[in-house]
Amino acid sequence: MKNIVTYRNLIEEELKKNSSQKNFPLELYEPIEYMLSLGGKRVRPILVLLSCEMAGGKVEDALPAAIGIELFHNFSLVHDDIMDNAPLRRNQKTVFEKWNRNIAVLSGDAMLVRAYQYLAKTKTDKLEKILKIFSETAIKVCEGQQLDMNYEKQNISIDEYLQMIEKKTAVLLAASLKIGATIGGANENDSEEFYEFGKNIGIAFQLQDDLLDVYGDTQKIGKQNGGDIIAGKKTFLFLKAIEKGKKNELENCFADEKDKQAKVDSVKVIYDSANIKTETEQIIQLYSAKAFSFLDKIPIDSDKKAPLKSLAESLMIREY
Amino acid sequence: MKNIVTYRNLIEEELKKNSSQKNFPLELYEPIEYMLSLGGKRVRPILVLLSCEMAGGKVEDALPAAIGIELFHNFSLVHDDIMDNAPLRRNQKTVFEKWNRNIAVLSGDAMLVRAYQYLAKTKTDKLEKILKIFSETAIKVCEGQQLDMNYEKQNISIDEYLQMIEKKTAVLLAASLKIGATIGGANENDSEEFYEFGKNIGIAFQLQDDLLDVYGDTQKIGKQNGGDIIAGKKTFLFLKAIEKGKKNELENCFADEKDKQAKVDSVKVIYDSANIKTETEQIIQLYSAKAFSFLDKIPIDSDKKAPLKSLAESLMIREY
Repeated sequence: MKNIVTYRNLIEEELKKNSSQKNFPLELYEPIEYMLSLGGKRVRPILVLLSCEMAGGKVEDALPAAIGIELFHNFSLVHDDIMDNAPLRRNQKTVFEKWNRNIAVLSGDAMLVRAYQYLAKTKTDKLEKILKIFSETAIKVCEGQQLDMNYEKQNISIDEYLQMIEKKTAVLLAASLKIGATIGGANENDSEEFYEFGKNIGIAFQLQDDLLDVYGDTQKIGKQNGGDIIAGKKTFLFLKAIEKGKKNELENCFADEKDKQAKVDSVKVIYDSANIKTETEQIIQLYSAKAFSFLDKIPIDSDKKAPLKSLAESLMIREY
Repeated sequence: MKNIVTYRNLIEEELKKNSSQKNFPLELYEPIEYMLSLGGKRVRPILVLLSCEMAGGKVEDALPAAIGIELFHNFSLVHDDIMDNAPLRRNQKTVFEKWNRNIAVLSGDAMLVRAYQYLAKTKTDKLEKILKIFSETAIKVCEGQQLDMNYEKQNISIDEYLQMIEKKTAVLLAASLKIGATIGGANENDSEEFYEFGKNIGIAFQLQDDLLDVYGDTQKIGKQNGGDIIAGKKTFLFLKAIEKGKKNELENCFADEKDKQAKVDSVKVIYDSANIKTETEQIIQLYSAKAFSFLDKIPIDSDKKAPLKSLAESLMIREY
């Protein structure tokens, strides 16, 4: 097994090799290269390569699919940023902010097509299977984004929230692992266990994100606490507090015209009074344990599982 | 060979059978069904079925790909309408006008993914080939739309214009025929001839559109003349007139603050003085003849070519 940095370098190299920066028309291709150059952890394509090797396959065989998944992920970010009116992504201007809305729509479309082009390069008798997993996942990601937009304007339950983050975030991590494992030669059953591991760790990861926004060490997470509170997002913490009878208190708090920091502080007081931090830690633990139980089931040597385990743990352990 | 109405009914039936109207979330799926319900001539999927049968294949084998092509076409319309700020499509509200811009972006994305899902259903050892043709075409369509947007703001040559309409309009007709023929069992060479036929007839068709806008019989084309002139579009007629030294006259005409009909009338006078109608008819004839010469080359019985020939002719003969 290779280490994570090796996988990542392979991906960066492949992305550079396939750069289309100078293609014509520039307005279509420059945003694609710009978006890919913003970096990111490349978690999804690493998962494709890792699970392929874990299943006994060769990394090279999974590389096109890995690039395809990374392109899809970046396509979804470009279009989400349009819909969320987000000016910044990874501390740089978003595509729609740097160019314009139309260019962001169109270059996003081209990225989605290119994602399929890479996936279709997979040398395997399982191309049909891989495309099926990929397309079903892509549809779920669209559904997740639509639900996220819907939920801004309506009351939702914790279950609805969990289903939304599963679709919007977790299924792509799950599919990355399943596609890699399938290319590597895993059978239906085992590749489904890869999928379930990815899905559950993905949900845990998103819940952790919700938690860190309020309780994270500002030094370690590199941003101020309470961004979600200021943005009025319905996070797990918010929905749990409502479930625990804090609806009126929270509403009063949000209706209040006080300054941002004061708002964050008073919401935190409400969360503390309802034991929300512990509740959230518990559900993260639940999903995380569920994820690892699926990983345990996969019939391969535990030393081969070590890199995936430590990758997952490193993503989860972003301290308070 | 079946007649065109039979092919069309097959497509409508298949579209209805696969309706996702009641899927969740509604905001994602209703726009897809709405867009597909607006109708249209279904020319592209008909071409897929027709060329498959012409090449000796069974219509059923090409049906998923035909639906995929129609979904792709509708995806591109939904996103184009966003970019063009178009309120109406086939005399009905566009998706972004009826719902909103974000829903139009996202439901368009989902349609593109569904297009691939249908294509991937093709039962053939040629799935890889078909996906390759499709994705390359999809990329060209994106390039064409970007060029169209670019060209609104810059001076362009007739060659640039022809390349733009080739990408934006003609290649999808070409790919429809090539994909159908490939599924039907045509060899590389013959399916390329189908492609060239579709490409050239597609360019002729778009040029005919430009011509009819100015010289069409308003009764027969069902709209007023001069829509392109009022919108300030750079059509073939406009670019040809510039090539023939009418730049200043046209610019004066467009700078003038006269009413729409007066503007249309004076542009028409300029076009007439430069013999633009005949010039346009000649180039249409050129592309059309080129198209049919490719059709002639395909080694199948001419009676099998008859339905495609008459479909192409019926599209071209929309009288003045």
